[in-house]
Amino acid sequence: MAATTAPDGPRGPVTDLIPEGDNRLRKVCTDCGFIAYENPKIVVGSVCGWEDRILLCRRAIEPRLGFWTLPAGYLELNETTGDGALREAMEEAGAQIALEGLLAVYDIPRISQVQLIYRARLLSPEIAAGPESLDVGLFRWDEIPWDDLAFPSVRWALDHYREMLATGDPRPRTNPPGATGAMRTAPPGL
Amino acid sequence: MAATTAPDGPRGPVTDLIPEGDNRLRKVCTDCGFIAYENPKIVVGSVCGWEDRILLCRRAIEPRLGFWTLPAGYLELNETTGDGALREAMEEAGAQIALEGLLAVYDIPRISQVQLIYRARLLSPEIAAGPESLDVGLFRWDEIPWDDLAFPSVRWALDHYREMLATGDPRPRTNPPGATGAMRTAPPGL
Repeated sequence: MAATTAPDGPRGPVTDLIPEGDNRLRKVCTDCGFIAYENPKIVVGSVCGWEDRILLCRRAIEPRLGFWTLPAGYLELNETTGDGALREAMEEAGAQIALEGLLAVYDIPRISQVQLIYRARLLSPEIAAGPESLDVGLFRWDEIPWDDLAFPSVRWALDHYREMLATGDPRPRTNPPGATGAMRTAPPGL
Repeated sequence: MAATTAPDGPRGPVTDLIPEGDNRLRKVCTDCGFIAYENPKIVVGSVCGWEDRILLCRRAIEPRLGFWTLPAGYLELNETTGDGALREAMEEAGAQIALEGLLAVYDIPRISQVQLIYRARLLSPEIAAGPESLDVGLFRWDEIPWDDLAFPSVRWALDHYREMLATGDPRPRTNPPGATGAMRTAPPGL
């Protein structure tokens, strides 16, 4: 159902003002006085293994439509981070998974995003593309479409997953040194 | 500076509607059509040690004014979680700290909050109450005001900090089994 709109169309909190008693610019709606306190967003996702294969999803939505990513998305209200990661695996890949611990916390401050990525295993190899995926697949390490990954943090998480399995060091990883998550023209890390 | 308000006062996105193409109720402003996509909020903080003492702050603001807490607060836009934890320690306790790893990720889904709590050490014992603190102090374990802690997750983080030091197990902790962070009448954990 569409919302009723003002005669001149939706405006909303788009004016930058420092509200009384505050010390930062906030987006304010000059129609109604509403102050939108914007906060960073939480992305939850997982690297899901099945034997020596890893689950990837080919994006059916922008940004980076057609590129491969992990099952991940915005945490919803009243949801735990673990439940969010399970939901995203089901929604994007029809995948039933079990979480095995926190793999990484990535900071992407440029877009005010914090990513919590879990290590997980598939409970079965039955997967199917959901509405936000063009395709899903289980890839051996050397079959991963490295040139067609959607975001730098997908590469980070895959590398960290492999390294955690190899070393057994269970400390969650963070951004690679100096990496901010900014997109480059060339595919990340290659 | 106060925002211009509609003649009947601020309303903002307060009407529950499912926007076209969405599948969840969102808060919509029927004045202007703005859709407020509410997201969970990220709290960043730290358990800061100085020798055998731990830094606590007595809250000068509601909720739980007068009770003791860790230096922690909402992550700001374009801030990394680590920088947020450093900022909160400085703002609330005048404390310079160094982070030593992620101590815990706590899910408080009832209030749509995810807490990232770091383990940290004070770089000096010089501390001072900031505007949001009535008092700050460095407490030995048996001096901690257990009956006057502000939130259940403060107790969790203190217990997890002590346990991490004792066991050396660096995996970040999560909510204690069954604990949701709901406030109880009695002080938590006692």
